[in-house]
Amino acid sequence: MLQIAIVGFGNVGKCAYEAVEAAPDMEVCHVVEVSGVSAPIGMEDLWVTDIKDIGRDTDVAILCLPSRLCPDTAERLMKMGISTVDGYDIHQNIWQEKCRLDDVAKQNGVAGIIAAGWDPGSDSVLRALMEAMTPRGISYVDFGPGMSMGHSVAVKAIDGVEDALSMTIPAGAGVHQRMVYVQLEQNADIDEVTQAVKNDPYFVNDQTYVEQVPDVKALLDMGHGVRMTRRGVSGNTHNQVMEFTMRINNPALTAQILASAARAVKKQTPGCYTMIEIPVIDMLHGDKIDLINRLV
Amino acid sequence: MLQIAIVGFGNVGKCAYEAVEAAPDMEVCHVVEVSGVSAPIGMEDLWVTDIKDIGRDTDVAILCLPSRLCPDTAERLMKMGISTVDGYDIHQNIWQEKCRLDDVAKQNGVAGIIAAGWDPGSDSVLRALMEAMTPRGISYVDFGPGMSMGHSVAVKAIDGVEDALSMTIPAGAGVHQRMVYVQLEQNADIDEVTQAVKNDPYFVNDQTYVEQVPDVKALLDMGHGVRMTRRGVSGNTHNQVMEFTMRINNPALTAQILASAARAVKKQTPGCYTMIEIPVIDMLHGDKIDLINRLV
Repeated sequence: MLQIAIVGFGNVGKCAYEAVEAAPDMEVCHVVEVSGVSAPIGMEDLWVTDIKDIGRDTDVAILCLPSRLCPDTAERLMKMGISTVDGYDIHQNIWQEKCRLDDVAKQNGVAGIIAAGWDPGSDSVLRALMEAMTPRGISYVDFGPGMSMGHSVAVKAIDGVEDALSMTIPAGAGVHQRMVYVQLEQNADIDEVTQAVKNDPYFVNDQTYVEQVPDVKALLDMGHGVRMTRRGVSGNTHNQVMEFTMRINNPALTAQILASAARAVKKQTPGCYTMIEIPVIDMLHGDKIDLINRLV
Repeated sequence: MLQIAIVGFGNVGKCAYEAVEAAPDMEVCHVVEVSGVSAPIGMEDLWVTDIKDIGRDTDVAILCLPSRLCPDTAERLMKMGISTVDGYDIHQNIWQEKCRLDDVAKQNGVAGIIAAGWDPGSDSVLRALMEAMTPRGISYVDFGPGMSMGHSVAVKAIDGVEDALSMTIPAGAGVHQRMVYVQLEQNADIDEVTQAVKNDPYFVNDQTYVEQVPDVKALLDMGHGVRMTRRGVSGNTHNQVMEFTMRINNPALTAQILASAARAVKKQTPGCYTMIEIPVIDMLHGDKIDLINRLV
């Protein structure tokens, strides 16, 4: 049984725990939660409050943390001899963080998979596959409607924000609106918060609306979706049309892909990888002969 | 420039030629056509009539042959020190042929990718990816409407058949009808042909209708499509719904994936692989940093 540590026990961490426990070949050996929240009933033996208390019996740590905390945490774990997977989603920094972690992983004889959620993650695999099928053409990715966890966390980090929800609304052809619902701390100024949101790297490229609400919790729904379309050319043949759509519980899908990536990471040579750099079969449980007979 | 031999110059072979020539990093060094058809104008220098006349300058041979001829041809090429890709589509034999060619490839220090069309092929990657996202659940693959090249070739091989077209009609939830249009040789018996079609391994599991027509050529359209749906469970979270659809020129897509696989096969260690066993990024042209920045 692959021994898995869950690092962070928020929405994604809780779902990652379920995904690992549902897998026939993995089990949770530790849950790391630094917030001071005490262990849920039945999980006391797994619960630790600092990464350093994860034992060397751990094969893989699944990082269920805000993106900005992932690379440094992955580095720390790799130096402890533990392979990592994370859902790091700041697209423009992935190459740089991957390269940095690649060095750390190789120095410590472990492996990492970075950006192993659904976008980046499974959508990245689809984008790459669609380009192998139609090297020329135009792709669009329309997200939502749905809450963006990364964007919501970014807003919550802004001074004066007590709670926040960022909804991604598809406007077609890869254009999105961001509807940001904020619950403010006393004396916070909505205009200042609005400006801070609009200037954040997560929001600066999108049309963003900020609305103050009394209670963000009342709005929360973890449903999300995507529509990826590509129209392109195979060889000299035009009008090749393909589309992928899904409608999913967001933290549950993110966590499941992280869990599947945890299985895959143990099959890689030392280094840090994105999902398009690993064979998809490595993410699956089962004998190779059965998987190939069933899926190819 | 990767030197590519196209083996077989039918519908897929012609499109493979175009796909290779459209790629910035590959060029066609030989076209092998054993039928006796003479070279099209401008292709005389490339044209050879026997595999043994392919030079050792060839990096990869793309097999654009009926499935049943692929494994032995791949073996012969591998023994000449040439890596191969093929669109072998007899699902139930893929594992066995892959294992046989894996040995041959390793003995000769080359690599092969088997079943590198769209189904098996890119659809296989999608099936594997969807299972990594939702380990439990039900998938359906609905093909068509469209001509099945493999099925049509199988009918053409039956005694008394002058020409044939097998159309795949989706009946929903992965159930298909086969509409087979046959043009008979003189004195051939439609009842005998019908029985031979229905008993063929390609057709034995599907509802099959055989119709005699005077001229199969008048019916040919290379359009095809697929709808792959999966409803499943991530961790303990149900109602995760995803779907991939496409509407494509069939030989053009098959050929493009073969060409992309030809790029990938040179990046693999010796052995024979299916598409779910290779990283998708290996199929793409370009610098790793650019691909990861753009696609992940």
